[in-house]
Amino acid sequence: MTKIDDLPIRDELRGKSPYGAPQLDVPVRLNTNENPYPLPEPLVRRIAERVTEAARELNRYPDRDAVELRTELAAYLTRTGGHEVTTAHVWAANGSNEVIQQLLQTFGGPGRTAIGFEPSYSMHGLISRGTGTGWISGPRNDDFTIDVEAAVAAIGERRPDVVFVCSPNNPTGTAVAAETVLALYEAAQAARADTGGALVVVDEAYGEFSHRPSLLPLIEGRPNLVVSRTMSKAFGAAGLRLGYLAADPAVVDAVQLVRLPYHLSAVTQATALAALEHTDTLLKYVEQLKAERDRLVDELRAAGCEVVDSDANFVQFGSFEDQHAFWRALLDQGVLVRDNGVPGWLRVTAGTPAENDAFLDAVRAVLKENR
Amino acid sequence: MTKIDDLPIRDELRGKSPYGAPQLDVPVRLNTNENPYPLPEPLVRRIAERVTEAARELNRYPDRDAVELRTELAAYLTRTGGHEVTTAHVWAANGSNEVIQQLLQTFGGPGRTAIGFEPSYSMHGLISRGTGTGWISGPRNDDFTIDVEAAVAAIGERRPDVVFVCSPNNPTGTAVAAETVLALYEAAQAARADTGGALVVVDEAYGEFSHRPSLLPLIEGRPNLVVSRTMSKAFGAAGLRLGYLAADPAVVDAVQLVRLPYHLSAVTQATALAALEHTDTLLKYVEQLKAERDRLVDELRAAGCEVVDSDANFVQFGSFEDQHAFWRALLDQGVLVRDNGVPGWLRVTAGTPAENDAFLDAVRAVLKENR
Repeated sequence: MTKIDDLPIRDELRGKSPYGAPQLDVPVRLNTNENPYPLPEPLVRRIAERVTEAARELNRYPDRDAVELRTELAAYLTRTGGHEVTTAHVWAANGSNEVIQQLLQTFGGPGRTAIGFEPSYSMHGLISRGTGTGWISGPRNDDFTIDVEAAVAAIGERRPDVVFVCSPNNPTGTAVAAETVLALYEAAQAARADTGGALVVVDEAYGEFSHRPSLLPLIEGRPNLVVSRTMSKAFGAAGLRLGYLAADPAVVDAVQLVRLPYHLSAVTQATALAALEHTDTLLKYVEQLKAERDRLVDELRAAGCEVVDSDANFVQFGSFEDQHAFWRALLDQGVLVRDNGVPGWLRVTAGTPAENDAFLDAVRAVLKENR
Repeated sequence: MTKIDDLPIRDELRGKSPYGAPQLDVPVRLNTNENPYPLPEPLVRRIAERVTEAARELNRYPDRDAVELRTELAAYLTRTGGHEVTTAHVWAANGSNEVIQQLLQTFGGPGRTAIGFEPSYSMHGLISRGTGTGWISGPRNDDFTIDVEAAVAAIGERRPDVVFVCSPNNPTGTAVAAETVLALYEAAQAARADTGGALVVVDEAYGEFSHRPSLLPLIEGRPNLVVSRTMSKAFGAAGLRLGYLAADPAVVDAVQLVRLPYHLSAVTQATALAALEHTDTLLKYVEQLKAERDRLVDELRAAGCEVVDSDANFVQFGSFEDQHAFWRALLDQGVLVRDNGVPGWLRVTAGTPAENDAFLDAVRAVLKENR
């Protein structure tokens, strides 16, 4: 039988495994930051209607530029992000992963580098590898905030072409202050004045769950600053794979040089448009999840865990001598959380109240056993 | 206003334009090789049903490995391709463009090269550029068949890591003989024995329209040979963006090292599965289109045009001193065809009988004017 390594694959892929959380069939799954609330039935019906319309023209290519969808996303951002943006400021793709891939193909790639401050969303590094972009692992403080001084120094020294700032940060839940982003932006522009600056990508996949306002207004007057978003979390649509960005219209023009033509299917566009019609209902679920997230933080602390302040729909908790043993012990109790490989820490997604209760009970039970 | 060139984009993207056919609003559009037949209404209803089911779980990530879809695609290929394949032989992505991009990220990329025999599908070269893969333009004969001797020589001399063979070839309609593919495969393996061979990608996007059987059986015993397909044309689903490949299971494992996790949305998977339930109906449209394609060839020849033998759902016709002037003259008659930049030649998609009649009338009128 032929094996991967018998094939003429790229050397840097040899011995690697595909990215992806283990998918185990257990009663309580709180491992992939999904929204636990199914879409409301009126929205399901609206999706069926809009997809039916799209299916009647499915023999034709979809709108290559997804203009209607980008217009509605711009309206949503304008309404909720504290800054007015138009269709020309917005770009959409199959998940924010594809948005990031297109940005790296345009602004990163062979001979260029990207930096992220780890632990952070591991796909930033993996998509860099996939696009031939060198990856630089930048520092964080022990409390998982960005160490601004060290980060600015790393940018000055390593001169990356792309800077990732994840806010709220995955897997730690840490929000990033606007002043921090501005300091990194200035440092990156100064370090790469030779090439017209460096691109700073603020990944706000979990932005709607934050106590702080969106960093969207920072794009004003900063053509090299991009805010990326997703409908996977706040819109409860992980299955839809719809990510988007807001930036100077020139950035939107630039990614079109590398996007695959007709990358966004007509059914994806139709489904996303239906979901955007139901924004108000979906944002009410976000409020419930924020309350549950805050409850998780409080009750984990009351149970004796250390917990990182969270602005996301998940919570990083610890600290454990062997976090993987604790992960396994929770799994034995029927609760799946995520071990992101951060020594001492685990991540739990805020689920329904019942799921969160089951998780908290399991944590208390395991802590008691180990006492 | 910021312009693309003010941004720190990659040098090779400077001055480039996004790929895409001009989309003009004219009565008869035969420029993008779309299937002119809308999906039948029972299939539209089935799509709505399956998407409704998927929408009820849209808060969850989709099946990351698209197992059900790959299983049904494997069954379709086994039934129609003259060779038995299983789920493990098949991979699917957002259009065959994404399939090709994943293959190039795995087997091409920085420091590596790909060759195609031009004129051919221009995305092969563009996706190579987008993935940092060097592009080599290989030769064809004047009749647009592959010049096997020259192609083998080019492979021996340039030693590409990836070889593209488009059959039937876009934009010329030319089918490639199995012996030709085998000769190129052997040459490519010999030339790159140092790296374990070279990947040969047989792009059968238009395979169902061919007079010849699929080249699928060639994957047997050839782990570096891939056949790529799409549901855009034969399945009348350009709006769906569903491409797939068949190859040794090791190739399927390998592309998973670079695929974005959860790249294929739940609604895309549901819609594709619905369409596969209606394969027999959709393949009847293919038979109608093949008959219309043959009629276009005959009537264009009768009108005095040169026509390249076609195995696709389009026809390349000429030869014109100034093909763009002829393109413009047809447009003035309300008929949009494609100028792919092949000097002297234009490409017309086989449409409905009425669309084809309108096209043929326009050709005759323009020829008469110019006489």
